[in-house]
Amino acid sequence: MTEAFKKIRIGMIGGGPNAFIGEVHRLAARMDNRFELVAGCFSADYLKSIKFGIGLGLDSERIYRTPSEMASAEAEKENGIEVAIIVTPNNLHFDQAKTMIQAGFHVICDKPITSDLKQAEELERLVNSVGTRFMVTYNYSGYPMVREAREIISSGRLGKLRVVQVEYPQDWLATDIEASGQKQAAWRTDPSQAGEGGAIGDIGTHAYHLAEFVTGEKPHSLLADLDSFVLGRVLDDNAHILLRYESGLKGMLWASQIACGHENGLQLRVYGDQGSLEWHQEAPNFLEFKPLGGPTNTLTRGGPGLGTFANESIRIPAGHPEGFIEGFANLYRDFADHLRQSSSKSSQVEKDALPKVTDGVNGVRFVKAAVASSKAGGVWRSLH
Amino acid sequence: MTEAFKKIRIGMIGGGPNAFIGEVHRLAARMDNRFELVAGCFSADYLKSIKFGIGLGLDSERIYRTPSEMASAEAEKENGIEVAIIVTPNNLHFDQAKTMIQAGFHVICDKPITSDLKQAEELERLVNSVGTRFMVTYNYSGYPMVREAREIISSGRLGKLRVVQVEYPQDWLATDIEASGQKQAAWRTDPSQAGEGGAIGDIGTHAYHLAEFVTGEKPHSLLADLDSFVLGRVLDDNAHILLRYESGLKGMLWASQIACGHENGLQLRVYGDQGSLEWHQEAPNFLEFKPLGGPTNTLTRGGPGLGTFANESIRIPAGHPEGFIEGFANLYRDFADHLRQSSSKSSQVEKDALPKVTDGVNGVRFVKAAVASSKAGGVWRSLH
Amino acid sequence: MTEAFKKIRIGMIGGGPNAFIGEVHRLAARMDNRFELVAGCFSADYLKSIKFGIGLGLDSERIYRTPSEMASAEAEKENGIEVAIIVTPNNLHFDQAKTMIQAGFHVICDKPITSDLKQAEELERLVNSVGTRFMVTYNYSGYPMVREAREIISSGRLGKLRVVQVEYPQDWLATDIEASGQKQAAWRTDPSQAGEGGAIGDIGTHAYHLAEFVTGEKPHSLLADLDSFVLGRVLDDNAHILLRYESGLKGMLWASQIACGHENGLQLRVYGDQGSLEWHQEAPNFLEFKPLGGPTNTLTRGGPGLGTFANESIRIPAGHPEGFIEGFANLYRDFADHLRQSSSKSSQVEKDALPKVTDGVNGVRFVKAAVASSKAGGVWRSLH
Amino acid sequence: MTEAFKKIRIGMIGGGPNAFIGEVHRLAARMDNRFELVAGCFSADYLKSIKFGIGLGLDSERIYRTPSEMASAEAEKENGIEVAIIVTPNNLHFDQAKTMIQAGFHVICDKPITSDLKQAEELERLVNSVGTRFMVTYNYSGYPMVREAREIISSGRLGKLRVVQVEYPQDWLATDIEASGQKQAAWRTDPSQAGEGGAIGDIGTHAYHLAEFVTGEKPHSLLADLDSFVLGRVLDDNAHILLRYESGLKGMLWASQIACGHENGLQLRVYGDQGSLEWHQEAPNFLEFKPLGGPTNTLTRGGPGLGTFANESIRIPAGHPEGFIEGFANLYRDFADHLRQSSSKSSQVEKDALPKVTDGVNGVRFVKAAVASSKAGGVWRSLH
Repeated sequence: MTEAFKKIRIGMIGGGPNAFIGEVHRLAARMDNRFELVAGCFSADYLKSIKFGIGLGLDSERIYRTPSEMASAEAEKENGIEVAIIVTPNNLHFDQAKTMIQAGFHVICDKPITSDLKQAEELERLVNSVGTRFMVTYNYSGYPMVREAREIISSGRLGKLRVVQVEYPQDWLATDIEASGQKQAAWRTDPSQAGEGGAIGDIGTHAYHLAEFVTGEKPHSLLADLDSFVLGRVLDDNAHILLRYESGLKGMLWASQIACGHENGLQLRVYGDQGSLEWHQEAPNFLEFKPLGGPTNTLTRGGPGLGTFANESIRIPAGHPEGFIEGFANLYRDFADHLRQSSSKSSQVEKDALPKVTDGVNGVRFVKAAVASSKAGGVWRSLH
Repeated sequence: MTEAFKKIRIGMIGGGPNAFIGEVHRLAARMDNRFELVAGCFSADYLKSIKFGIGLGLDSERIYRTPSEMASAEAEKENGIEVAIIVTPNNLHFDQAKTMIQAGFHVICDKPITSDLKQAEELERLVNSVGTRFMVTYNYSGYPMVREAREIISSGRLGKLRVVQVEYPQDWLATDIEASGQKQAAWRTDPSQAGEGGAIGDIGTHAYHLAEFVTGEKPHSLLADLDSFVLGRVLDDNAHILLRYESGLKGMLWASQIACGHENGLQLRVYGDQGSLEWHQEAPNFLEFKPLGGPTNTLTRGGPGLGTFANESIRIPAGHPEGFIEGFANLYRDFADHLRQSSSKSSQVEKDALPKVTDGVNGVRFVKAAVASSKAGGVWRSLH
Repeated sequence: MTEAFKKIRIGMIGGGPNAFIGEVHRLAARMDNRFELVAGCFSADYLKSIKFGIGLGLDSERIYRTPSEMASAEAEKENGIEVAIIVTPNNLHFDQAKTMIQAGFHVICDKPITSDLKQAEELERLVNSVGTRFMVTYNYSGYPMVREAREIISSGRLGKLRVVQVEYPQDWLATDIEASGQKQAAWRTDPSQAGEGGAIGDIGTHAYHLAEFVTGEKPHSLLADLDSFVLGRVLDDNAHILLRYESGLKGMLWASQIACGHENGLQLRVYGDQGSLEWHQEAPNFLEFKPLGGPTNTLTRGGPGLGTFANESIRIPAGHPEGFIEGFANLYRDFADHLRQSSSKSSQVEKDALPKVTDGVNGVRFVKAAVASSKAGGVWRSLH
Repeated sequence: MTEAFKKIRIGMIGGGPNAFIGEVHRLAARMDNRFELVAGCFSADYLKSIKFGIGLGLDSERIYRTPSEMASAEAEKENGIEVAIIVTPNNLHFDQAKTMIQAGFHVICDKPITSDLKQAEELERLVNSVGTRFMVTYNYSGYPMVREAREIISSGRLGKLRVVQVEYPQDWLATDIEASGQKQAAWRTDPSQAGEGGAIGDIGTHAYHLAEFVTGEKPHSLLADLDSFVLGRVLDDNAHILLRYESGLKGMLWASQIACGHENGLQLRVYGDQGSLEWHQEAPNFLEFKPLGGPTNTLTRGGPGLGTFANESIRIPAGHPEGFIEGFANLYRDFADHLRQSSSKSSQVEKDALPKVTDGVNGVRFVKAAVASSKAGGVWRSLH
């Protein structure tokens, strides 16, 4: 680098005190020194927001009452924000994103991008007409070994794909902690804030995107059997789903937030006629590659035999584990390079691999279809 | 033991040269010195059978042309066989078992017990009316840590069960080896010998029984999506199945013989509202017990904290791995003790836990329902 | 096989009620149907011995008061024993083995073969002069993946060896259970029965042999730091040892019986200039092969890429775990084939790989040198 | 936080283009937003340094020709640096640290802190007399699960300690890559830059510190057998070491840079009379706790049952892996809180746990003793 990267100015909507994911976004944005948090609207409670923003080192004048206020004020500044980060409950994404896009800002938004499919589709049209960038934080696609998996498959080393098994078990909602006022649980289990999907929206969408990101294939239909195991819970906390693809590929997807003993057990296995791959989020620096008729190969982040996509997605050498924040930060880093057109990386990363508004729409469509399938008794539903 | 166990005399039907499972039965029968192989009818080719039986140390006069011949001849001997072992292709089980039961012999039979449900039900009636013993070799229920899992659940330590995830992936049929004359593959992929189930019959029934054995619950309905991925193959080589239980328990079952990289990857996970269990057949001496809100406990065969069922199912101390043959042999040992009424073990083992003809019928019913569900496009089918 | 294997008749010395290793020998001898237990002298208490032998199905006339009595009586029978199995405490091995060899019997003897080096050397001379076979049950060399490790190294795939790390931690002597009358512990911690080595003799010799078996190299000197951590214990329960080899290879060996949390944690790692190998006794069906500059390969028993030595040492296909008993039984099977000269196997197995009296002597020499080194304060000692 | 943390201004010495560890320090310093890199002297080549510093976003006037220049210039500024980060080859640490301490700056310095013991001791005296803070980046002590291990042991849950097994195998120096001009390898294998220790200094010191950090005990003597396996290499690339402690604790330490197949395989096992602990750097979010007589517990970062030290050392919830950079950053975060006296954490973290100049001196003493022991043929040496 012969000159400094001109940092991208960001404003955050949501992500106040105790919000897990807001802090992750800030850590990820800061990691590679390509972003600068300069404005925010962290909480519906303005005083809380002010206090919190000052704690983050912001100028109090750039801590706003509402996203609209932030949009107007920042749009007028010479050094106003360039990107808005939306980390609020699902039901708020649509209005906030719309406001920011219309004001000309790029957006980084959590998944699911809306709690309603029509709204998601409207955002997609809006992004396309305005021409700003919109990244959905399907962050697991930022892990180097997930990117390696995608590259192995796209290079044909597994042959024709046959089966995909993806699962995302957690246990933090195994009891009704929402009743005790745990804020993270409260909004995720409340249809008015989360939308019609519970576990299916919160983590099922991650699993769904991961399978698509790695295989490069989209299912045409699904069948879902959803449950709310915890007494009194309205939204699903366990989802059993079958998937069918045009190519003949078949899939199973399991998402659960009541699976005792799992912290964040996202895992993906893909089987082709020439070999298979296996990856576990809780041991993210490893990828098992099992060629038909040969012994299992354990590929490692930074280790021998990896492709350029993975190798461009790391910071430190093999054996020095990179984790969740680093994977998340890869999305931020790539998005920044994209905005500044400063990257020396392969075009694949920037052009194709970052999750876009369309991926967000697909996620919402998946939730809607799954809920409809289950309500109808567990029947096949089209995803088109 | 103050006097020697009076060995049980067995005659084997099938299990000739290169038959994997016949050899396993002989190893299992021999392990604990409770059986003596004295007669056989190992192959449809009588000369082969003679040669093979002599190699095993049998008297050539007790090597028979047909099961019927064996039944008649042995029934007349003072020291004739007591138990017939049936290890032929599925389509032959019914006639052979019927013959042996009618001649008054106990039977140990491979799964699926028949290739047709009506026949299975007829066998069940026959066994009940004649009063002989009939054991189906759902051998995975013989592993000590599987037995521990059953005991943990029946003792209520997982609380109310919510989800069961069982899978049995293999890869030995990932290509059309049946075309090359591989005998094991040839009959298993041939509907006239295997029946209407491929992977679902060969290994799916094991997974299905394992889930029932450990949870103590039977599903009331299922939905299956079966595939024959290998070109030209008629029977399924991959099965995706959803399960529903009266209690509200939900399940996923995956059986595959085209899952590259898996040798014999049977694994079971059961989730209750108080904890979960996880067991892998390829590392059978370990069982993970995950109590809600506590760290994962790795229980080990012979190690601290196990119940009597598991502890009565081992031969050597913790840390000295017992494997597939030993697990298989546990069924033989328990069956022998049962026949001789010689055991000092808990009654549970003998009365309830050994897989019986009814378990065999359930397996055939499962195959039939799964095939029907899939043929109808993937719809729910009753298992009653 | 066109004719039955003529079973080898064995007589056992020791291995009475509750003796773990005696039962293992019987299981191993029986597994492949090549041996027949026909005589025994199981306990110093003749009544106990009689009772026990009858329970095993022996003729009471062939249950003897002493090994000498067994030697004389069996030598005169037409169908007398051919092989004596010695599974008594270490201090008894010498006289018993000598008696049996002089009577012309082959011997299978537990390690360490004697509690004194001079006696071991005398046995070696005796075996060589009489010309009988003598096998020491360094049983870990029977595991298929250990045999594969040996073949990989002897084929040069690791290049020139540099480092060997072997360890054998257990925890069953972490407290003074010998004080409570636990019989297995009592004799192993008693110098008059075990000899001068505690953990070093009981399990250190296994680790030492394993390293030599796999690397094909013998150290020329060692340095040991031994401890007796449990209060009142006389013999070592923890051994830290450094090894030096002629070739420049260097080694570390750790044997411990007070290492809380380890059941039978024997593991071996060997590093050459072209790659390395790693094997764990508690997961014995796997072997990690790590070629320099490539990803780790997990080799599996019965799986792709194995050599003939491993492939001739299995009974059932990949994915169906074989365990401790099967590994132990491989020594018995090979020894039987050797005696009957009936094997179709590679000569390496029979000629070189079975542990012989000389290997037994080496083990005793190792114990003696380690104890001497430690007593001298931890100094280098020659192993010649 | 009700007001923003006043960022600590840092100047970096070394860490220019392609320096792995310099980039890690910058990532770690940035992670928690408590530091600001404002000055630097990144390379002996001033033009390179300027270019590099500008790329990092520094003002070119604060990029210096020499550490002395930086010390003088920054000392005069109102907003001059407060902390100097030293990430140069070992032989340069002494002069640079001395210069910075004498100018009144706090220092964060890589290990080994000097290439010579006398110099290390002089630094210790200097730090104590001047009263500035000096942190040595024994970064593995920053991992939450390492801190948990320390807390478990200090709380007495392992009982009296008996054995510690620590190892740090790598393979990046398995061939003579220093000959090819690889810069990282070149200085680490050159006695004039690295000092008298090769692997022992580069990674052995980490292993040595880790064992002391976790056990809370210092060995009184050691015995080392060092090798230079790669032809032409002068410094050790493999170290076998035995350790003895006042309390009776015994240890084995293995450090190797020629251990094919290991990327950064630091692992620690500690055995007491009540239980043991096991931790692996390449899977750093897990800690196995094995209480005597109970099953193994797998503790997880952020999971149930952890103490305050570990819980104060994390950023994101259980199941979302934190890695090497986060562990490293914990030292930076704690050091910052210490300097600003702003922490709400337990005093233990700040007062005791951060590695100080004395820990750096101990590391150099360890290297010196190990080299001396090995040169003398492998004899015991005092560490006092």
